[in-house]
Amino acid sequence: MEQILYFERGEFDARLASVKAEMSRRRLDFLLISEPPNLNYLTGYDAYSFYTPQMGIVALDRDEPIFITRGMDTTSARITTYLSDSSIHGFPDNYVNSSERSPYDYVANVVREIGGEKATIGVEMGGYYYSARAHADLIKALPRASFVDADLLINWIRLVKSPAELVFMREAGLIGDAVIKRVVETAEPGVRECDLAAAAYHQEISGTPELGGSYNSSVVHLGVGERALAPHSSWTDKPLSNSTVINIEVHGTRRRYQINVSRTICLGKPSPGYENLADVAIEALNAGLDSVRPGRACSEVYGAFQKALARHGLEKDQRIGYPIGIGYPPSVAERTASLRKEEKTILQPGMCFHMMTGLWLGDQAVTITQPFAVTETGYEPLTFTPRTLVVK
Amino acid sequence: MEQILYFERGEFDARLASVKAEMSRRRLDFLLISEPPNLNYLTGYDAYSFYTPQMGIVALDRDEPIFITRGMDTTSARITTYLSDSSIHGFPDNYVNSSERSPYDYVANVVREIGGEKATIGVEMGGYYYSARAHADLIKALPRASFVDADLLINWIRLVKSPAELVFMREAGLIGDAVIKRVVETAEPGVRECDLAAAAYHQEISGTPELGGSYNSSVVHLGVGERALAPHSSWTDKPLSNSTVINIEVHGTRRRYQINVSRTICLGKPSPGYENLADVAIEALNAGLDSVRPGRACSEVYGAFQKALARHGLEKDQRIGYPIGIGYPPSVAERTASLRKEEKTILQPGMCFHMMTGLWLGDQAVTITQPFAVTETGYEPLTFTPRTLVVK
Repeated sequence: MEQILYFERGEFDARLASVKAEMSRRRLDFLLISEPPNLNYLTGYDAYSFYTPQMGIVALDRDEPIFITRGMDTTSARITTYLSDSSIHGFPDNYVNSSERSPYDYVANVVREIGGEKATIGVEMGGYYYSARAHADLIKALPRASFVDADLLINWIRLVKSPAELVFMREAGLIGDAVIKRVVETAEPGVRECDLAAAAYHQEISGTPELGGSYNSSVVHLGVGERALAPHSSWTDKPLSNSTVINIEVHGTRRRYQINVSRTICLGKPSPGYENLADVAIEALNAGLDSVRPGRACSEVYGAFQKALARHGLEKDQRIGYPIGIGYPPSVAERTASLRKEEKTILQPGMCFHMMTGLWLGDQAVTITQPFAVTETGYEPLTFTPRTLVVK
Repeated sequence: MEQILYFERGEFDARLASVKAEMSRRRLDFLLISEPPNLNYLTGYDAYSFYTPQMGIVALDRDEPIFITRGMDTTSARITTYLSDSSIHGFPDNYVNSSERSPYDYVANVVREIGGEKATIGVEMGGYYYSARAHADLIKALPRASFVDADLLINWIRLVKSPAELVFMREAGLIGDAVIKRVVETAEPGVRECDLAAAAYHQEISGTPELGGSYNSSVVHLGVGERALAPHSSWTDKPLSNSTVINIEVHGTRRRYQINVSRTICLGKPSPGYENLADVAIEALNAGLDSVRPGRACSEVYGAFQKALARHGLEKDQRIGYPIGIGYPPSVAERTASLRKEEKTILQPGMCFHMMTGLWLGDQAVTITQPFAVTETGYEPLTFTPRTLVVK
């Protein structure tokens, strides 16, 4: 069967070496990987199969990871990973949603087979796909092993993107630009909110003529009128009115690498007060971006943004950004370094963020944002849509 | 702010009463709800905010649930739930993805405030959004409480849909039919796989002229050619060839109620062997559907399907269906009664399933499926697309 692998083997080897080095430093014999983006990062695995249990295993003394998934999904593992067949295990279907059998017993058996009965095992305690049940079942099945929280171990390594990854981040950005363009073209009075969202989805998946898109980790966030004040709200069936504010967050996803970008579109002329708020939001966004430098802390970027806001008597007490990269539901955000007041992480070239400087203030909301990569000297925008309020 | 509530208050009251009755039976004082569909079911809450921690609390001695979410998402709670403002709590943004603060400490404080310090508390151990970390943090913060696994408590109640819910399931089915129609129209040699997927997404979100669609819990599964053998694979940029098999699973989602439906499309005339396999798959699907009756066990439906397959010397060892209803990522499947060999659950009117009888056999795969509701006398199809192999 034809393989679909988007990176050279050397890239995967380097990633595995980094993970093993960190495991050694923490004295972990094994690392159990439940997070879909971490599995994709280490093995290439890509299929929408993570809604049933699956697990990657890195053992310090083994050359390649082991991957365990539902039997029917081993086909995807053979297509999308570099793993040899002997490293791919499929559990029987009667383990799925069963009250009698736990897939984690199956995982524990594999761990035992490769000598992990008394090992020190890192697990992703805060992962989206590592439930309280998963942890309880594993502890019960491996009573002589010791379990250590290794949440975000791989996420922190993923934070700095390689040149090959940055290629996909830039391509994702081009798709994101095409989506915003399509949304701006489609937004007209009388168009149903759902049809505006549908146009965004169509472009996200279609991509550009050169670059096919993919599904993304989240949904289009579309707040219209009053609902523009609800950051993660959805669309309705209602037609857009002659005079309204549309806040929309869309994505570009290329080979699982994803950017997020938001814009505000006004149908009809906005009030001078609203235009002024948008100007302030853009000024602060640009101030944040201009402050990006390798060697600076995330908190300094927040500080530059907040200083610009404060000149106008405003404050945003939420974080103004999160790291982006490989996107699987429910979120592309890597859960590591946020751009916010207290975040001490130092910026390095190759880190990618969505500077999400949305303002939801009283009865007004503006969401004009910018995904970017940290470069040797500052930042590289990953989308090129002008940072302006769109008025139609 | 205008409210968006898709059910009468009486419907929510009845749901809460059912949950409390089951809590009483299990001697639970509190139930902590992390699963997005369960939160939606009990309160109406709808926003894509579950990628940061949130929690509903049902206390036996309180009239309405409490809902805790990130501060910025309390706006969505006020728009989409019937809860009074005093029942909606927002935690500060510096709890998000923090290594210093846990949102579950915030949750524990609320539990304490309402008298839960020494309570018996049910939690959803196997939930997608109840991580090992969430459980550990709660246990630590409430050392005198006793925690009990109440996973699926609400899911089992959700299994039987009310008349008002069935209205949305049928509307979701109409959207699903429109999506399949659009996919069949779009699938042509030379069309890129991503553009075929994009057409499906566009229709899913747009819906029909009368019924706007919504995002769904999963992604379009699109297997073309060899990848038709991988059930949860994705699309590529490649153009469709003159002669290929396309297996696609799409959705219709109406006000968060979702149906899934799959079809197989052949570009070019399939081989007689393949046509024969499709005939067998359809015969077995119909046999399974015709066996649906209230009072029968799920295993009997599997039996009728398998008996039809066996007449042709075939077997499907995976489950042939799962319950559907409220859909949030990563899956609409309610994780309760599967249609399979060992499942003893008795069918009741109002239960809804996706009969997912996809066959992935050797080098051939057929996915022709049917979402349905159990009626007083048999089954009601939720989509009306003919159960046939589509040949173009």
